[in-house]
Amino acid sequence: MIAHSLKSPAFGPAQQLHGATYIVDASFVAKKIDENNIVIDIDKAAQVLKKVLSPLNYKNLDDLPQFKGHLTTTEYLARYIHQQIREEVRSYFKGTLKITLEESHVAWASYEGKVK
Amino acid sequence: MIAHSLKSPAFGPAQQLHGATYIVDASFVAKKIDENNIVIDIDKAAQVLKKVLSPLNYKNLDDLPQFKGHLTTTEYLARYIHQQIREEVRSYFKGTLKITLEESHVAWASYEGKVK
Amino acid sequence: MIAHSLKSPAFGPAQQLHGATYIVDASFVAKKIDENNIVIDIDKAAQVLKKVLSPLNYKNLDDLPQFKGHLTTTEYLARYIHQQIREEVRSYFKGTLKITLEESHVAWASYEGKVK
Amino acid sequence: MIAHSLKSPAFGPAQQLHGATYIVDASFVAKKIDENNIVIDIDKAAQVLKKVLSPLNYKNLDDLPQFKGHLTTTEYLARYIHQQIREEVRSYFKGTLKITLEESHVAWASYEGKVK
Amino acid sequence: MIAHSLKSPAFGPAQQLHGATYIVDASFVAKKIDENNIVIDIDKAAQVLKKVLSPLNYKNLDDLPQFKGHLTTTEYLARYIHQQIREEVRSYFKGTLKITLEESHVAWASYEGKVK
Amino acid sequence: MIAHSLKSPAFGPAQQLHGATYIVDASFVAKKIDENNIVIDIDKAAQVLKKVLSPLNYKNLDDLPQFKGHLTTTEYLARYIHQQIREEVRSYFKGTLKITLEESHVAWASYEGKVK
Repeated sequence: MIAHSLKSPAFGPAQQLHGATYIVDASFVAKKIDENNIVIDIDKAAQVLKKVLSPLNYKNLDDLPQFKGHLTTTEYLARYIHQQIREEVRSYFKGTLKITLEESHVAWASYEGKVK
Repeated sequence: MIAHSLKSPAFGPAQQLHGATYIVDASFVAKKIDENNIVIDIDKAAQVLKKVLSPLNYKNLDDLPQFKGHLTTTEYLARYIHQQIREEVRSYFKGTLKITLEESHVAWASYEGKVK
Repeated sequence: MIAHSLKSPAFGPAQQLHGATYIVDASFVAKKIDENNIVIDIDKAAQVLKKVLSPLNYKNLDDLPQFKGHLTTTEYLARYIHQQIREEVRSYFKGTLKITLEESHVAWASYEGKVK
Repeated sequence: MIAHSLKSPAFGPAQQLHGATYIVDASFVAKKIDENNIVIDIDKAAQVLKKVLSPLNYKNLDDLPQFKGHLTTTEYLARYIHQQIREEVRSYFKGTLKITLEESHVAWASYEGKVK
Repeated sequence: MIAHSLKSPAFGPAQQLHGATYIVDASFVAKKIDENNIVIDIDKAAQVLKKVLSPLNYKNLDDLPQFKGHLTTTEYLARYIHQQIREEVRSYFKGTLKITLEESHVAWASYEGKVK
Repeated sequence: MIAHSLKSPAFGPAQQLHGATYIVDASFVAKKIDENNIVIDIDKAAQVLKKVLSPLNYKNLDDLPQFKGHLTTTEYLARYIHQQIREEVRSYFKGTLKITLEESHVAWASYEGKVK
């Protein structure tokens, strides 16, 4: 549940400070399942998501240093969260990671990339 | 898609400026359907919803005069929107009006009252 | 999945022959649960729903004799289905029956009444 | 919200004139985001969707000249809408376009192809 | 996510040991909102739900002493959870409490009663 | 609606006998649609799904011989169901088959592979 503003004329009324609830899904895709018949430990994955999302939740993104000078669109945030989660899971997960941010029932964005 | 802050210690991290996407549903309940077999003209209802919600969308509620000194909780906003819509439809709708604000998949609030 | 037209100027473009997928929910409300700890046998309820909805599915409602001269709005259909199901369950269910027709993610209508 | 009939014995009861509510999603996939950190302007995308879908909404597809002699299955409509949107966005979007038609909670079809 | 069996001929194949994921919603209804403009503290409500549901999650209900000799239907579980939550919130919430257990997209049961 | 236990320390409380409702989706992907403008006959697909899922529904998977010595994780079950459906449709469908098991609103697994 974040506040932000999108400071480019391209965004019309969204240039004003407003907010959004984002539902964030992470999909981990692998060629094989491991000896426990899983792709990733879902509790670990949930902890990583929580660790990455907590510093953003209940915040005004305009005030956070890592977003200074960046347009925090849904696409941008999907890539940002992808990068953060990729670093967290890199030691035990190899495959494709897809992050989806659903900002409402009718709008969402995803970022997909490899974790090597 | 609004920004706001809830300035009471009761709200923990939500005291900070943050945001939310609200999905707003309006239910119109009547004892009888009219000569067109409807409770209310759904296009008219959609226009009223749009008229009432537009001044809030893409805004920081902390900056709007009507909310000065009020905690804009989901419950409060449900009642506020109920009152606004009630005034709009009063001339052609009599019955019960229920407004529901869904702020995420796991949290929502409703306000229900008569339109006389 | 029905076709129909709504022949009154009140309905604008819906006066033309068009169609809709309706998802129909039935809620059975009772003061007490029975000796099997249920309100109604869900398989029986599903069979009744199927029996009542089958004659409407994949049909043009404009061609069905029971709807001749009626505006088959969602509200009207909710009441029609309520009446049909009420007759079917009357011998073994006493309480409140609520029928909801969801015609899309943003529009639905319900009819609620007693079964005695 | 369309009416249509599927005139081939393969479709059983769907050979009769019936109808459906389709929820249409469009996904635009690109290798990079642009200088505004977006894949496509969501307002523009919404306008294109509206422009392409309006001539079909509240219609009996059996009566529309572009569908004469075609079985308007969900798969066929997904491809048709894909082609229409592709032409509309071609001048400013390069990438993959996926169109999904959800005809109910349990049935949907997609068409995916490049926009060059 | 529980396992259980329903030992009465009324339940056909559900007499066998099987399982279900239940999504549990709690609605708190009050005449007035408090000085913080809320009906109930949503964090407190979430903690109560967790406290009441944890002893059931990942369990075979047939093995739990409190359900010995009871048919653990969805209706029964809704009432059981209602009673447990009612006791937890009684000291600070007065109003109506409704508990809904969704066992799948097509089946759910609720129990509604006063908290005094 | 199945019961099972996951007998490996990796699964924490899920080592106990518990249960789950799985919603199973099958996606059939082909390069071309056939002479009826479809990818697959949806009634046939529904029958195959039913045939493959019926022997699992209302069962304790720990008791079924085909799962003896296997950890019946969601990933494993997705692959198992994929293999079963692939054999059923092989004579009339060539393309990609993706099976998704949704075990709750927040957890799901898919298995995707070719049908040749």
